[in-house]
Amino acid sequence: MLYPTPIAKLIDSFSKLPGIGIKTATRLAFYTIGMSDDDVNEFAKNLLAAKRELSYCSICGNLTDEDPCAICQDESRDQTTILIVEDSRDVSAMENIQEYHGLYHVLHGLISPMNGIGPDDINLKSLITRLMDSEVEEVIVATNATADGEATSMYISRVLKPAGIKVTRLARGLAVGSDIEYADEVTLLRAIENRTEL
Amino acid sequence: MLYPTPIAKLIDSFSKLPGIGIKTATRLAFYTIGMSDDDVNEFAKNLLAAKRELSYCSICGNLTDEDPCAICQDESRDQTTILIVEDSRDVSAMENIQEYHGLYHVLHGLISPMNGIGPDDINLKSLITRLMDSEVEEVIVATNATADGEATSMYISRVLKPAGIKVTRLARGLAVGSDIEYADEVTLLRAIENRTEL
Repeated sequence: MLYPTPIAKLIDSFSKLPGIGIKTATRLAFYTIGMSDDDVNEFAKNLLAAKRELSYCSICGNLTDEDPCAICQDESRDQTTILIVEDSRDVSAMENIQEYHGLYHVLHGLISPMNGIGPDDINLKSLITRLMDSEVEEVIVATNATADGEATSMYISRVLKPAGIKVTRLARGLAVGSDIEYADEVTLLRAIENRTEL
Repeated sequence: MLYPTPIAKLIDSFSKLPGIGIKTATRLAFYTIGMSDDDVNEFAKNLLAAKRELSYCSICGNLTDEDPCAICQDESRDQTTILIVEDSRDVSAMENIQEYHGLYHVLHGLISPMNGIGPDDINLKSLITRLMDSEVEEVIVATNATADGEATSMYISRVLKPAGIKVTRLARGLAVGSDIEYADEVTLLRAIENRTEL
């Protein structure tokens, strides 16, 4: 005998999630059974609602429950700047600091020659279309500081610069609160290269 | 702006699970949105079904989708032995080794003087009732090797021994594959005390 079917199925569902193995899935499933009826119903409802109500903004590609998304609709935002990110979570991270007031463009991936992902496989074509006849003056590439992120930022810069659009990227350097002693060599190199006057 | 409402709610549901913080909950929620419709529907269905269809066996307290549970119903099992465990997961662990063929009793907790949990707060009374007029000859206490587990096992032994029932508990000693060098002192002490002849 193993677990009764209903719990075995629930364990199976949990174990499909990333980073959740069979032991954790079992723990979560048992915990769920101990939760109140209301909480479980709410959980199931939220799962279905999230899947049903969310889609990607037809302009910027951000995850949204209305199309165009709240940011693209907001005319008070700076229409001359677009910040390019890998996915919707990066948009939230940026919005949380409340310092950037321009528009976004979500790529849903990065160019990755190693994995055979080229410019046509990510949400880049719509960016080009979007930039035509727009008032955008600057594109900020905010991809992760990884090999794929660098490759993507290089590609975007090469495509957009000839069109006379200013392309910038996020600064590379020491993370705030970090220790020089433990910083990796490339980060230290960038920190020296990009040093700023006090 | 933060996340659109549907995903914020889903993140909230995920973060109610044990060991899942806000970052992991966000990752899981975004992953779920990328899953196929079928998988998400299945997940929601399994959540509701597990909560609705599972209950505790009226005899042994094990989690089951029928009452009495499959083990209590199975007359081919040894009716003279009951193995006492803390929760239903322990039943599954035992069943997996396919070596024990008796019955079970699930306590749903352990006696814990530190946390004010006494014998009346766990599923012990039904064990006493169950043992009256039964053919049970041996009760194996299979609680965890922790302070609460020991306290529970002591209590059960004191209550049942006067009734002429043999009370045993799982062996304490070195776990298979473990290193003497890294074993804690109490485990080593038990391993010497309970040494067996070769």
